[in-house]
Amino acid sequence: MLRAIVTSSDSVPSVPGFRFAGVTAGIKKRGGPDLGAILAERPIPTAAVLTTNQVQAAPVLLTRERVSRGRAQLLLVNSGCANACTGAPGMRATVSSCAAAGRAFGVEAEDVLPASTGVIGQLLPVDRVKAALPLLKAGMREDGLADFSRAILTTDKGPKVAGVQLTLERKKVTVVAVAKGAGMIHPNMATTLGFVLTDAKVPPALLRRLLRSATDATFNALTVDGDTSTNDCIIAMASGVSGHAALTSTGRAVSRLEAAIREVLGGVGRMIVADGEGSRHVVQLEVRGLRTDAEARRIAATVATSNLVKTAFFGQDPNWGRLIAAAGRAGVRFDADVAQVHVGDVRIVHRGVAVGPEAERAAHAIMSGPEYSVRLTLGRGPGKARYLTCDLGTDYVKLNADYRS
Amino acid sequence: MLRAIVTSSDSVPSVPGFRFAGVTAGIKKRGGPDLGAILAERPIPTAAVLTTNQVQAAPVLLTRERVSRGRAQLLLVNSGCANACTGAPGMRATVSSCAAAGRAFGVEAEDVLPASTGVIGQLLPVDRVKAALPLLKAGMREDGLADFSRAILTTDKGPKVAGVQLTLERKKVTVVAVAKGAGMIHPNMATTLGFVLTDAKVPPALLRRLLRSATDATFNALTVDGDTSTNDCIIAMASGVSGHAALTSTGRAVSRLEAAIREVLGGVGRMIVADGEGSRHVVQLEVRGLRTDAEARRIAATVATSNLVKTAFFGQDPNWGRLIAAAGRAGVRFDADVAQVHVGDVRIVHRGVAVGPEAERAAHAIMSGPEYSVRLTLGRGPGKARYLTCDLGTDYVKLNADYRS
Repeated sequence: MLRAIVTSSDSVPSVPGFRFAGVTAGIKKRGGPDLGAILAERPIPTAAVLTTNQVQAAPVLLTRERVSRGRAQLLLVNSGCANACTGAPGMRATVSSCAAAGRAFGVEAEDVLPASTGVIGQLLPVDRVKAALPLLKAGMREDGLADFSRAILTTDKGPKVAGVQLTLERKKVTVVAVAKGAGMIHPNMATTLGFVLTDAKVPPALLRRLLRSATDATFNALTVDGDTSTNDCIIAMASGVSGHAALTSTGRAVSRLEAAIREVLGGVGRMIVADGEGSRHVVQLEVRGLRTDAEARRIAATVATSNLVKTAFFGQDPNWGRLIAAAGRAGVRFDADVAQVHVGDVRIVHRGVAVGPEAERAAHAIMSGPEYSVRLTLGRGPGKARYLTCDLGTDYVKLNADYRS
Repeated sequence: MLRAIVTSSDSVPSVPGFRFAGVTAGIKKRGGPDLGAILAERPIPTAAVLTTNQVQAAPVLLTRERVSRGRAQLLLVNSGCANACTGAPGMRATVSSCAAAGRAFGVEAEDVLPASTGVIGQLLPVDRVKAALPLLKAGMREDGLADFSRAILTTDKGPKVAGVQLTLERKKVTVVAVAKGAGMIHPNMATTLGFVLTDAKVPPALLRRLLRSATDATFNALTVDGDTSTNDCIIAMASGVSGHAALTSTGRAVSRLEAAIREVLGGVGRMIVADGEGSRHVVQLEVRGLRTDAEARRIAATVATSNLVKTAFFGQDPNWGRLIAAAGRAGVRFDADVAQVHVGDVRIVHRGVAVGPEAERAAHAIMSGPEYSVRLTLGRGPGKARYLTCDLGTDYVKLNADYRS
């Protein structure tokens, strides 16, 4: 049984084996916390899922290289500057700031992983990072996760932390996720970053597999605007101090840890969508009845990113024609004549045609709420998929149209 | 040499061998012209490019079946009702209205092609179509294209007609395109419709090839919102009354006719983007330097449909980070370190990094205009592509968020 220990920032938990800090280094033009660190007691099993964008920021490149060894001890994360599209000077800045942090914290340079989020095309100000390291080190605390969670934010309305406790092999284990992101990318102040921390004892290869599968089910199945960033990164670290024997690759304990990681990543993922730039409605989209899950997922992704669907959500309009038309352009064959559409529990389309005005009025009422589900049933096959999305409102446009300077 | 004879509705040309009309049949709730017809003197070579959406409206299904014979005589087009997602009753309504039009005009039922645009999920009101047929027939005129062009509009700000004259085999030939669409789909009042009419003498198979290639270069390389409709359709008819010998499949005359068709379809396509729901800027996007044209086109389509790119256009912000990041998620390999970005003639990115604030100020000034070009050079390969897009502004959201009832 998973026990949620936090789903907001009100009571941020600690995770045995980790210390945290967040400070103001002067990287953000507008001020506020912008440099954070997560420190383990020694190099520990570490895994990462990194952006698939062809254009990758220097910190992503360096983390990709270093995490291939399956271990790390220190995460150095800044907001306010993505250090993307900054060429060789950008890579030198990332390497140099990680080396300085390693020296300050007594950690091997190779065991320091960087992550950055913020304006693309601006060079990381190494001097400001270096100058803030003594303060960062002095601030490291076991209960410092709240400080860290604030230091990594950009356009977010608030910090995003989710945690659960479970019992593995008769030992209490904690799993916590902390994330930032108010769009899959907010390209001036870019990016989704996510960190999963646990005191479970997990070998690196297994940790990688669990992170990948949980990410596919959560962060890879949500969208604010369909864009992905040069800096997206999710890193998992397992301190192993909970005291149980190291998990092997299968078994009940592994399944339970996998469920816990999915739970916390899903939790912060939902907070990201709810915080989606200007969004007012979180929509749980479910697509069923296709031949395979992959087909269902392809349709779900197309519907969830359709501007016409998302503006209808903004207008609280049960505009099922847009849902069906978006599904129809996903490149997947289905029989529109058997289509059913539900908003919450209200069926508005049956066998491909409208149920009627009364059903649509009931659906409209549901769509005025902050969170609801939409289900498309497009056949009788076993294939299904879920996707989390939000409405596209005028505030999204205003937030993203601001001239940068 | 092509001679443009019209690029707006000010002086709408006639095309020898065709008569046109547009009337008010009462299909649109808000009133106004909503039923149009194009009539040839006899069944003539006809070709169509139809939506690739898996969900296809009844008129698309019927036109697809009938046009496979390569001939038609009468086009019956209505706005205000898409007759999509209307099941078997929808197909019966389309077949029945075409049959009635055939009887009224003395045309074989099989030679009548329907096209519809408007609200998805509402049944075509056959009685209103039938009741309007006498008026429609009485209104048929050689100079009636302006009436027709107005009867097919939905949310468009105005009619869209483009024409050229050229000399083929020493005979004067006219090629005209007429279209509607203020989004690739405006899903309440859905769809892009386009019609190409010429008095050239072209066999059906050649007409199909020319229409397909011109559509790929024009309508398939423009976007307002990335959505495609259940009703999209472009139909070409060639009356052959210009008097030259029938064109064979290759040769200089064929190339010139192909260029003319591309010119007129490109002309009305540009009007559609300029009329894009709430758009203020038409942007000619050019992508160069890839290994193949297909790779360049894939990147161009991704950049042209990115909400973050399009909101930056709305904000007149030369936010090259968004352009590069969108290119990076197209699934095509390129070397970001050699990337160049131009806005108009101003280079803002050189070798993957920013040129500087002065260049961006100059680019910002260009982006305040109604139409400009953006060029991404992503390598040294020969592959290139063009795409026409527009900004995404608050008006787009407002237009599309209105609750239907």
